[in-house]
Amino acid sequence: MGEKNLSFVLEKPGAVKFEDRPIPEIKDPHDVIVNVQYTGICGSDVHYWTHGRIGDFVVKSPMVLGHESAGLISAVGPAVKSLKVGDRVAMEPGIPCRYCVRCKAGTYNQCPDMRFAATPPYDGTLARFYSLPEDFCYKLPESVSLEEGALVEPSAVAVHICRMAKVAPGESVVVFGAGPVGLLCCRVARDVFGAKKVVAVDVNEDRLQFALEYAATHSFKADRASPAENAERMKLETELGGGADVAIDASGAEVCIQTAIHVARMGGRFTQAGNGKSEITFPITAVCSKELTVTGSFRYSTGDYQLVVDMIASGKLEVKSLITKKVKFEDAEEAFRSVKEGKAIKCLIAGPQ
Amino acid sequence: MGEKNLSFVLEKPGAVKFEDRPIPEIKDPHDVIVNVQYTGICGSDVHYWTHGRIGDFVVKSPMVLGHESAGLISAVGPAVKSLKVGDRVAMEPGIPCRYCVRCKAGTYNQCPDMRFAATPPYDGTLARFYSLPEDFCYKLPESVSLEEGALVEPSAVAVHICRMAKVAPGESVVVFGAGPVGLLCCRVARDVFGAKKVVAVDVNEDRLQFALEYAATHSFKADRASPAENAERMKLETELGGGADVAIDASGAEVCIQTAIHVARMGGRFTQAGNGKSEITFPITAVCSKELTVTGSFRYSTGDYQLVVDMIASGKLEVKSLITKKVKFEDAEEAFRSVKEGKAIKCLIAGPQ
Amino acid sequence: MGEKNLSFVLEKPGAVKFEDRPIPEIKDPHDVIVNVQYTGICGSDVHYWTHGRIGDFVVKSPMVLGHESAGLISAVGPAVKSLKVGDRVAMEPGIPCRYCVRCKAGTYNQCPDMRFAATPPYDGTLARFYSLPEDFCYKLPESVSLEEGALVEPSAVAVHICRMAKVAPGESVVVFGAGPVGLLCCRVARDVFGAKKVVAVDVNEDRLQFALEYAATHSFKADRASPAENAERMKLETELGGGADVAIDASGAEVCIQTAIHVARMGGRFTQAGNGKSEITFPITAVCSKELTVTGSFRYSTGDYQLVVDMIASGKLEVKSLITKKVKFEDAEEAFRSVKEGKAIKCLIAGPQ
Amino acid sequence: MGEKNLSFVLEKPGAVKFEDRPIPEIKDPHDVIVNVQYTGICGSDVHYWTHGRIGDFVVKSPMVLGHESAGLISAVGPAVKSLKVGDRVAMEPGIPCRYCVRCKAGTYNQCPDMRFAATPPYDGTLARFYSLPEDFCYKLPESVSLEEGALVEPSAVAVHICRMAKVAPGESVVVFGAGPVGLLCCRVARDVFGAKKVVAVDVNEDRLQFALEYAATHSFKADRASPAENAERMKLETELGGGADVAIDASGAEVCIQTAIHVARMGGRFTQAGNGKSEITFPITAVCSKELTVTGSFRYSTGDYQLVVDMIASGKLEVKSLITKKVKFEDAEEAFRSVKEGKAIKCLIAGPQ
Repeated sequence: MGEKNLSFVLEKPGAVKFEDRPIPEIKDPHDVIVNVQYTGICGSDVHYWTHGRIGDFVVKSPMVLGHESAGLISAVGPAVKSLKVGDRVAMEPGIPCRYCVRCKAGTYNQCPDMRFAATPPYDGTLARFYSLPEDFCYKLPESVSLEEGALVEPSAVAVHICRMAKVAPGESVVVFGAGPVGLLCCRVARDVFGAKKVVAVDVNEDRLQFALEYAATHSFKADRASPAENAERMKLETELGGGADVAIDASGAEVCIQTAIHVARMGGRFTQAGNGKSEITFPITAVCSKELTVTGSFRYSTGDYQLVVDMIASGKLEVKSLITKKVKFEDAEEAFRSVKEGKAIKCLIAGPQ
Repeated sequence: MGEKNLSFVLEKPGAVKFEDRPIPEIKDPHDVIVNVQYTGICGSDVHYWTHGRIGDFVVKSPMVLGHESAGLISAVGPAVKSLKVGDRVAMEPGIPCRYCVRCKAGTYNQCPDMRFAATPPYDGTLARFYSLPEDFCYKLPESVSLEEGALVEPSAVAVHICRMAKVAPGESVVVFGAGPVGLLCCRVARDVFGAKKVVAVDVNEDRLQFALEYAATHSFKADRASPAENAERMKLETELGGGADVAIDASGAEVCIQTAIHVARMGGRFTQAGNGKSEITFPITAVCSKELTVTGSFRYSTGDYQLVVDMIASGKLEVKSLITKKVKFEDAEEAFRSVKEGKAIKCLIAGPQ
Repeated sequence: MGEKNLSFVLEKPGAVKFEDRPIPEIKDPHDVIVNVQYTGICGSDVHYWTHGRIGDFVVKSPMVLGHESAGLISAVGPAVKSLKVGDRVAMEPGIPCRYCVRCKAGTYNQCPDMRFAATPPYDGTLARFYSLPEDFCYKLPESVSLEEGALVEPSAVAVHICRMAKVAPGESVVVFGAGPVGLLCCRVARDVFGAKKVVAVDVNEDRLQFALEYAATHSFKADRASPAENAERMKLETELGGGADVAIDASGAEVCIQTAIHVARMGGRFTQAGNGKSEITFPITAVCSKELTVTGSFRYSTGDYQLVVDMIASGKLEVKSLITKKVKFEDAEEAFRSVKEGKAIKCLIAGPQ
Repeated sequence: MGEKNLSFVLEKPGAVKFEDRPIPEIKDPHDVIVNVQYTGICGSDVHYWTHGRIGDFVVKSPMVLGHESAGLISAVGPAVKSLKVGDRVAMEPGIPCRYCVRCKAGTYNQCPDMRFAATPPYDGTLARFYSLPEDFCYKLPESVSLEEGALVEPSAVAVHICRMAKVAPGESVVVFGAGPVGLLCCRVARDVFGAKKVVAVDVNEDRLQFALEYAATHSFKADRASPAENAERMKLETELGGGADVAIDASGAEVCIQTAIHVARMGGRFTQAGNGKSEITFPITAVCSKELTVTGSFRYSTGDYQLVVDMIASGKLEVKSLITKKVKFEDAEEAFRSVKEGKAIKCLIAGPQ
């Protein structure tokens, strides 16, 4: 298959194809070309595949999918100092402008001119070759595999969430939603940020069981009672006392967000990460009378990728057990189906060869 | 009138009376007795007067009203070092437990055992004498009058809001609601925290005019368009560029909170201070994709009162012009009526003599 | 031995005695009486024993020694809610005033009216019974022994140092001095605050070997070269790149402090914890041109004790292996000699029976 | 004089000349060319002129001097959006790499690859034309003159110092050294960051008088007593109570730094900004027992320039009265002599025409 730069392209909702595109060239002296080896599939990829849009981002012309990748350096620009051909790297897929106030303030994920892989109109990483600047490639130590390298992206999402939530050593953290990002939040909160207690919340028993084995110290299955009642029951059953120091929503579900606000302690924090309805019914008086700090978390920023690579290398952060399926590049569409149907926690696409 | 400790007592919703209560005694060696001179009336006082409750706080037995007071020290406990009889003081009306984690963490306003004046079951300050600990009395410098001393409480509310919102020098701040707290937020943001631009938002032209004269650099009158549309128009008309650094809601109105979220810039902050419906429709996706920080602000805490006294003394914070009405103690109910009917920005009750 | 409240008393430098003192009474309703079980000996205890003073703190009248203790609740005051007779607790030995700005700002360790055990003129904890407020006793979970309870104090010192240094997940930390506090800083930085690399620095090979076994990922033995040269060699040998994110001095030695400043990276942090000469030669230009943040760390404050108890209970923080000697109460002076002569890392005194 | 790009060049210590250099070209699409109108002279310029070096930065080949400039845009690169020919701008003279961790963390002043004007080997701004990226030019509002534009640089130094010191509303600030940067620290601390009390410290009566007129609320003339004694006298005379919230050294003098540490309160902050001896005798125990935070401040970073321009435009920051001398470009050497001899607070060089 594919002579030059075989790519997996979304033509329109539901319609994908393989296409041989030109191999990218080094345009900026700081650029490198990466020969992509593994790519994970995430909910947003699947959403573009099925709906052709996420919010205001609409796929108007064919776009290469994928943004959770790791690969081998195949070419380097003349100004590149830290990488050489053959190096194994995790690829951070969003390149900011470097000139605006947000970029210069240390929050480049808030850059209005961000070019993010597989977010229209920018092509993604499901291709043989992908070009990006040197400083958005993170060299993998020997102890970290390329498969793990593809897991750096969702792990960086979880690290950024925990940073926004300011998770501190010894704290109690409740995570709503036990999908890949929620599971990684549990693990990162406990083993990277030092949380003492991590409660995974979901409605699916299997997911809760996986969460307990993977990272959570406690689990909680919400029932049909009100959010306030579920919060009270959770406080009792998981011994949260006056409430959790931190609540994180990785589900996007309205009822989870409401329960999260109620389960947070006086002066606690809540961070919203999941995608769901753009407007919800929200217990604003509870935010006010408990003096909560509510933050949104959006992708990742300075230091997040490097921290993940370091923590995987040190053994503190184990991500391999999330990879429950691997498919060949020519079977890429199967990966999308698996994620859509919830048949895999994290599915990797290998290649193209 | 009144021989001993004349007090203004709420018996039940709408029913008040004057009562001669026992003069409080020094129970703790750190306590002082204050002879109250001036008391401001605030929306929460009026709410208890009309409804007999605020949320879960229900007036079940007769309660003295009032909590915005200044007076003269009339007695001091044996351990008191910083005050003497005759000193003029602003009185901070909420006494925390000093033992819990919140108290020891520097956030005593979050103490679950707070005893707050005129919040059931604790009596308020509308009395001849009131007892509180030495460290919750703030000596007024000669340049600060007792009338101004009664304005320290709402000013401290505004200081705490600006602290929660982390208003920084040179920032743009939009304040929704031009009542006493909103007006003080405008002034404090501009003259204490160094905001460059302060936009007052209201639907009442007279209030906006007052806001412009008192503190705001710009005003904005919301119309019947959607919150998102009003936010866009505000950005254009008041030259906010990509949005405001900080938005503050001092109105409690759902539509204001929604507009505030939309007018905040990427990475901006929103602080909720007004009381309104306990649940609202809330644009959560905007919080997430703009990585906003949303905080609730509840009363005031360490340093807020002292900062207000210092800023009034230095001339940076002018509060006198908010006092638009003064009544005698025997006419206390008139003060409540004036505030309820919106006939005064801040009405003070003098005495009892 | 001892009928009532047998105590180990320092009469004057070098002269100690056992004395039967009155059993303390409950004076404040929040007070408890603790029957002390184990007490660790620290460098400051030894310093009072040998010199009768530390800086401006001079032993002018006989003083009970000891401040690192754990014991059993033997009586509780009428307002005590969280503890009952028989509970096993770690005892925080410094009681602040609760009224000053420092106390109310969340930094009670900076309280000018602090009453600290075994700091003149306040008696220490080396006695059968000791009185302190409920909120300065930390209940030990079943999984934490009373011996470990006596180690909470030096561990809290290390936690506070890491907090002042703002050690964050994934960072590199260099700790100067491999005595008990330095060793605990290594362990706490790595296992509580998530440091990726912890370099222990000392001149004693045995201590460095212990540090590597106990907590450090790397060790460095300084030689007679200049501080700047030792810093450069350390950067190379321990792969610190442009320098360490954080440097901590737990030695008090001038040359260590100088080396620490040189080994910190651009924008890095240095925290001083060890006691030594009151004035030293200090590379101030390096602080300025690297924009370092230098902090002093003094004892511990809100949350430090609780975090230690929680982390020992969770298994993240192992402290038992630091206890290299235990003596009976009647042999207390031997404990002081052992510590003075460097024959024990941490020596506990049991009892009195 | 000068046809093309007349420049003021330092050949070797003490030897300057005028030279007609090539007009710079637009190399990067984001670059602009500025026609320099006014340039202030600072102590570091004078130091290069007299000594040919500052620390490790040695002038090895002829270098254009000057880095405090404002001018008119004379050409713009193809990617420039925010500026057009003729715009009046303040010029930020240090361009970071934009790729390293420090740049991406919001602290580009710590970039190891910084190219800073008039710091060897990079040419300065004392020339007819100077090239820099669009985002390091700050458009001056109509109300801000080009002379004031040249004062933005030293004002940004003062803003950065106050940021590093975390000066907060209502605080007391002591500033050592009443030269241009010290004076600006006084003014910025008071009028931008909201300090309540600003004490200027110097040994020169005239400078103290100027400081009181320009910005300080109090002055203090140190005498030959010890630093600790001077600190005690200052606390009494300027009513600092337990000490200053913040101390800033803008003198570089060892005795000032020592006094600053002693005058800071428990838990206070000290920021070092002045250049002096690279090693000094330093009261480290005071840092430790008072839990001080000591920071170095180096140039300026994200937001500092913009804040200065906004504050001058708003009238909060008045800088004109610091300009006590102006000379023509052909008399540039006279400006250096004036500053060296302390005959001017701030001397501007106009042109070249």
